[in-house]
Amino acid sequence: MQDSFELHDRLQQECLVVGDLPLSRVLLMNDSQYPWLILVPRCNDIREIYQLAQDDRQQLLAESCQLAETMQQMFQPDKLNIAAIGNLVPQLHVHHVARFESDVAWPAPIWGKSSAVPYSEAESQALVSRLRALLRI
Amino acid sequence: MQDSFELHDRLQQECLVVGDLPLSRVLLMNDSQYPWLILVPRCNDIREIYQLAQDDRQQLLAESCQLAETMQQMFQPDKLNIAAIGNLVPQLHVHHVARFESDVAWPAPIWGKSSAVPYSEAESQALVSRLRALLRI
Repeated sequence: MQDSFELHDRLQQECLVVGDLPLSRVLLMNDSQYPWLILVPRCNDIREIYQLAQDDRQQLLAESCQLAETMQQMFQPDKLNIAAIGNLVPQLHVHHVARFESDVAWPAPIWGKSSAVPYSEAESQALVSRLRALLRI
Repeated sequence: MQDSFELHDRLQQECLVVGDLPLSRVLLMNDSQYPWLILVPRCNDIREIYQLAQDDRQQLLAESCQLAETMQQMFQPDKLNIAAIGNLVPQLHVHHVARFESDVAWPAPIWGKSSAVPYSEAESQALVSRLRALLRI
């Protein structure tokens, strides 16, 4: 983790900040079509998980599992989709998406499928509050 | 790990077996458009990473990083894409795809993009042999 950590512009534009776990910033993608959270380890200049120091790798795994269990409990999806892609945004970030057989992209992955449908201010605030409480951040 | 482990039919049909790491079976997707490997932890009835026992989670992370570094060294891609999706195949499996700015799907993710272009027998045998040597399996 670095004090000089800066979130990539595109993540900043497309997401709402939920808060910080010990390693990662937790973001909510502003797309009401799917419950979609992102972990961004607060390390600069890292593109791939294997480039993280051993301790940070372990911490990312722990935070990913914590987030996955929280999402399972909160949204009760049919499946979670977890992915580190980053072809467009080079800053390491790990998508966590709660998928439903009834969602607009099922069974395909969600990336590049349809334009985001933003939350209302009230919806996103309610979601962020619930997430903060469950994640204790 | 269970002695009764059985690979899901669809993975069996679409992939070639490279070999076994301590936890996971390593598969090569039979699609010459992208170097595409898959780790399948040899545990039955597990759909999500967080459902693995703590030791198995750690081992999966270690094997994923080992595979990612091997792929980086072997293929020198512009980016790795690592993902646990599983909307169609419920058996937990983690995709590792070496991506190039010149590949047919770039910068989109590869899933559901275009039909597989199988390797020739000679190509796939050569790839599997090199992977076995580098992964020491």
